[in-house]
Amino acid sequence: MFSLQIIGLRGLPDVSPGDNLVSLIADGVRRESVDVNDGDVFVVTQKIVSKASGRMVRLADVEPSAIAEDWASRVEKDPRLIEVILRESARIVRMDRGIIVAETKHGFVCANAGVDGSNVPGGYVTLLPEHPDDDACKIREGLTATLGSRVAVLICDTFGRPWRLGQVNVAIGISGLKPLADYRGSRDASGVFLQSTMIAVADELASAAELVMGKLHRVPVAIIKGVVDHEGEGAAHDLIRPGHEDMFR
Amino acid sequence: MFSLQIIGLRGLPDVSPGDNLVSLIADGVRRESVDVNDGDVFVVTQKIVSKASGRMVRLADVEPSAIAEDWASRVEKDPRLIEVILRESARIVRMDRGIIVAETKHGFVCANAGVDGSNVPGGYVTLLPEHPDDDACKIREGLTATLGSRVAVLICDTFGRPWRLGQVNVAIGISGLKPLADYRGSRDASGVFLQSTMIAVADELASAAELVMGKLHRVPVAIIKGVVDHEGEGAAHDLIRPGHEDMFR
Repeated sequence: MFSLQIIGLRGLPDVSPGDNLVSLIADGVRRESVDVNDGDVFVVTQKIVSKASGRMVRLADVEPSAIAEDWASRVEKDPRLIEVILRESARIVRMDRGIIVAETKHGFVCANAGVDGSNVPGGYVTLLPEHPDDDACKIREGLTATLGSRVAVLICDTFGRPWRLGQVNVAIGISGLKPLADYRGSRDASGVFLQSTMIAVADELASAAELVMGKLHRVPVAIIKGVVDHEGEGAAHDLIRPGHEDMFR
Repeated sequence: MFSLQIIGLRGLPDVSPGDNLVSLIADGVRRESVDVNDGDVFVVTQKIVSKASGRMVRLADVEPSAIAEDWASRVEKDPRLIEVILRESARIVRMDRGIIVAETKHGFVCANAGVDGSNVPGGYVTLLPEHPDDDACKIREGLTATLGSRVAVLICDTFGRPWRLGQVNVAIGISGLKPLADYRGSRDASGVFLQSTMIAVADELASAAELVMGKLHRVPVAIIKGVVDHEGEGAAHDLIRPGHEDMFR
């Protein structure tokens, strides 16, 4: 029987700036008696990566600019939050009805440039990791050394999307895994050439992991076992559609 | 240990118009000795639903209109294919560099209005099912009666998305499952109210299933075991963002 297993790693403690995520995750793996093997994929939420690396801002320390004050008054939001969002943005894609869709400095397009106040102490917000592919690489190297198995690591966040309601988990940092399965030029089961099929496997893995993470439970890490043909080099940057190919910028 | 399992149902025969999908899937479950329980989610590709219900078009039978001829010459595509795409579209969202992004009559926004020539006999294309929620309901009722377990059913297809490369599997037909987990008004683990978090669980389940389906293998059905809090009423229509709330129409 061909199957995947997705394990939610429960019981991790609250993460604070300076914490060693590799140790926390490895301790969780041992405590929950998860049998880790070569090829397993560790999916880690952005929130704990941002917290551990100190990517948190106390809103009381933020001095909003005039433009942030102006925008905030129009959308009835905290001007200090708008200021943080603007600082994290390379470009505002849309601003309408209190929703800001921005392109981050990494090139991700998401609500509020990834600035988020959930699962953070009151009065604070988290920013996306500054270099999430590098963070994924460090966690992968640490877990591989500590656990003795060659694993891949994804850092994930929940993003909204046009046309469809609800957010889905996507990959914002990748190490040890090919983010796209490229079937262009292959033949399908009927022998027909597939013209343009590229599957965003890293995003599908992130979405699969979210199913055991939820938003209210403290399950910031999932382990996916049984994935095939995924190992290789790659970065979340590979998932960003180049501007000149994008019809919805 | 809290975990999900995703099983790929291999060895299903080619599907032809008029085939009984419930029988084919139930036979596959027995042949592969899958232990089906209440709450299991069956994810079924659009392709076999469209084939079984005869939603196939032989391009040789299509008479392209003048507008299809005109568009086809500009994007270097088969005018008969463009004609079929136009017939399936309620609205063209973008047409650029040979790519047509269209809103289907169901309200889905996707490339080529879901018209697809892969995994179909040469010279044919499939259309999306006409009423995929109804198809999901019929399959669910059939499987529940045949297998004796209360299951949920998703019909899925791979859709591209703006800003990110690659396609991901999403739900286009749903029965027996709540498509969205609505955390609005809930408190997170820090006691902070979550303002706007709705997770598109049905799409994440579809993406998870794709990981065992692939594009080249004949695995048109996946079974997801261990999902919690998902049972209920819902339709894929619930996942369509209303036009007046959509900033990217």
